[in-house]
Amino acid sequence: MPRITLEKAAEMLLKNDRVLILMHKSPDGDAVGCGYGLAMALRSIGKKAQPLCGDEIPKMYSYLTDGFEVQEFEPGLIVSVDLATTDLLNGKALEYKDKIELCIDHHGSNTDYAQYSYVDGKSASCAEIIKELLDKMGIVPDKLTADAIFTGVCTDTGSFKFSNVTPKTHRIAADLMELGADSTEISRIMFDCKSRNKVELERMILDTIEFSSDGRVAFVCITKEMMDKSGADKGETEGIAGLTKQIEGVKIGITMKEKENGEFRISVRSSSDIDASAICSQFGGGGHKAAAGCSIYKSLQEAKDAIMTACINALEDS
Amino acid sequence: MPRITLEKAAEMLLKNDRVLILMHKSPDGDAVGCGYGLAMALRSIGKKAQPLCGDEIPKMYSYLTDGFEVQEFEPGLIVSVDLATTDLLNGKALEYKDKIELCIDHHGSNTDYAQYSYVDGKSASCAEIIKELLDKMGIVPDKLTADAIFTGVCTDTGSFKFSNVTPKTHRIAADLMELGADSTEISRIMFDCKSRNKVELERMILDTIEFSSDGRVAFVCITKEMMDKSGADKGETEGIAGLTKQIEGVKIGITMKEKENGEFRISVRSSSDIDASAICSQFGGGGHKAAAGCSIYKSLQEAKDAIMTACINALEDS
Repeated sequence: MPRITLEKAAEMLLKNDRVLILMHKSPDGDAVGCGYGLAMALRSIGKKAQPLCGDEIPKMYSYLTDGFEVQEFEPGLIVSVDLATTDLLNGKALEYKDKIELCIDHHGSNTDYAQYSYVDGKSASCAEIIKELLDKMGIVPDKLTADAIFTGVCTDTGSFKFSNVTPKTHRIAADLMELGADSTEISRIMFDCKSRNKVELERMILDTIEFSSDGRVAFVCITKEMMDKSGADKGETEGIAGLTKQIEGVKIGITMKEKENGEFRISVRSSSDIDASAICSQFGGGGHKAAAGCSIYKSLQEAKDAIMTACINALEDS
Repeated sequence: MPRITLEKAAEMLLKNDRVLILMHKSPDGDAVGCGYGLAMALRSIGKKAQPLCGDEIPKMYSYLTDGFEVQEFEPGLIVSVDLATTDLLNGKALEYKDKIELCIDHHGSNTDYAQYSYVDGKSASCAEIIKELLDKMGIVPDKLTADAIFTGVCTDTGSFKFSNVTPKTHRIAADLMELGADSTEISRIMFDCKSRNKVELERMILDTIEFSSDGRVAFVCITKEMMDKSGADKGETEGIAGLTKQIEGVKIGITMKEKENGEFRISVRSSSDIDASAICSQFGGGGHKAAAGCSIYKSLQEAKDAIMTACINALEDS
């Protein structure tokens, strides 16, 4: 399962005329942008190419998917994009799990499941790599392909705010704008657009906010009743886990979400000197130092008390 | 009051050894970034340089202002940055109102108040121009100067989301990162950090949200009581006027803010086919087609009814 150069990856794609491109489940802007962007680019030089995802592509990406013709063919080359592990394949895409010949990815944790892989863990998005790959292939992206790639670049960097951004990220964004990418409209759809239901849910969530330890611990909660009442989709709770940590002075932010069968799913975000992963491991969970998760099967009040106590203790020990 | 080239502006700065740099009142990231960035750059080549603002520089910019030594001198050259009109000078800066020899600005509406002006209305931020100016002067910004300029670039573009962003904006951001600008930390402070009071105010504001005309008109209100109860600063209501227009389906977003002496200050944001300025002009206000304002001196309920009715009518006529 060797790692290859980007030139070699470009060569593999140029040699084949029927390319199937796999995307991970719950596709985000980078997955959709890479899947559709690469397919559009390959089609522009006369190849058959089709992106495939086990889940439906969310409506917000309709500027890429509307009018995109489905091509059916016997794949000559099976490629994955932005896919760290085949565990993230589902539905129809899962059928190709063991047949992936080329992987293009930016996750340092990539499990080398493909026959050949190009992995650049320093790339903020997989979309950045797709742009460089097209350069190697001599393909100049058209406007819609540039839109697709820009979508990946801006979503995986939180609009150029995250620590994964490099000078290369900005230079690629500049190139994509010159190729016609509508950065304003894409940014509006990705970052400044929310459903009325989501606004209602956010209002309810803010009503649950509680602080402890002189404002250094903040807690919010999302119950099933709140989800029902607001009418918000499951996908619309994305980003909520970051909310508490944005508040000045907060060292540990806790977001607790009621699931089925008495489960409370807990997300803990912490400042660098406090280990969120150690807190969550007390409840059988885990994750990274700054962001971790666990589940507690108790009543809402008991679950809240348990995680709050663990966080307050961690703060006192730090 | 002639317009000059950037080369000529660079020459004027290089010729003088004591430069006073004026910033507008209520300074934002672009004003602070340009004022401090230009001063740091001039100091780096042995000149005396001092930024001056009538208002105190907000605490959030302390990474630029902390440890920045105040220099007192008789100015040899008085420069303004990011200043469209001298109406925006206040306090100590106002004293120099009629003595501005060089203006560096990016407002197309600049009133040509200075002896010589370099204005680039297509530049997303004045900070972009400062970077180009330093290039012309042969000054390579140090880390802190790059931080200052990056602050202007990212704040005036809403972190690269607004329609003023050009490929040049991204290329300058890339260059600044290579010069050491800490884009992650600056972005965090500018965009992902809010006070507990602001969160409390936002919660209260969301509680006032009302929709009309099948969700096409949205209304929120900020009362003096809410300001007092939340403890939020006046500056912390910034950005609130954009909130309602972010909601899917909303064509007209209204934000009503209670001021002193029975005034309700109203901000109207609209989609491109509805003229917010025409709505506000019915109450003696004005502005742009997509964003306008007016004041109504009535009770909260009467003011709300009046503006809501005007908006609903505008929607029906469109």
